Amino acid sequence: MSDPDGYYAVIFTSQRANADPSYEEMAVRMAELARTQPGFLGMQSARGPDGAGITVSYWKTEAAIGAWKENAEHLLAQERGRKDWYSSYEVRIARVERAYGMRQP
Amino acid sequence: MSDPDGYYAVIFTSQRANADPSYEEMAVRMAELARTQPGFLGMQSARGPDGAGITVSYWKTEAAIGAWKENAEHLLAQERGRKDWYSSYEVRIARVERAYGMRQP
Repeated sequence: MSDPDGYYAVIFTSQRANADPSYEEMAVRMAELARTQPGFLGMQSARGPDGAGITVSYWKTEAAIGAWKENAEHLLAQERGRKDWYSSYEVRIARVERAYGMRQP
Repeated sequence: MSDPDGYYAVIFTSQRANADPSYEEMAVRMAELARTQPGFLGMQSARGPDGAGITVSYWKTEAAIGAWKENAEHLLAQERGRKDWYSSYEVRIARVERAYGMRQP
């Protein structure tokens, strides 16, 4: 995931509409399912107390992103998301050009 | 920010090291300062109760990102971040290739 060449990030920002408990279950299931997809490289997620959330997933190719978007179980989750869980969301597909970081010893 | 052509995302993922109250003050100041920088397009941020956070900022050009990274006040904040606030972080610079979304009426 730290290879600066040729991988993609899907930046998913969202605002939760309500506190539907079925959301958490589906979010966990989608994270599990994503990990099994070809070309999946990793995922990071955070949601604050105001309900604003960001999930970034990393993929080897744009084709892998397209296949995940069309996964049947994921399509159902997307539909529930639009209908029940989110008041708004945005998806951005971006090509990672460079990366750096720090980890305390 | 929804123009799919030619803008950049800086994906900053971090893990907070402790609950230093000076962090919040600096985070607010940095968000204010970023908004005044040439080429700044927007920013979204979320941190969960486990201390894992994601901030994504959007910029017109890579040069604008470079100038913000070298801003004197921002450099001091970066130093405090490495020394006091984060146990780890990663920065990814990515070119946004497409975007879509939903907003409830």
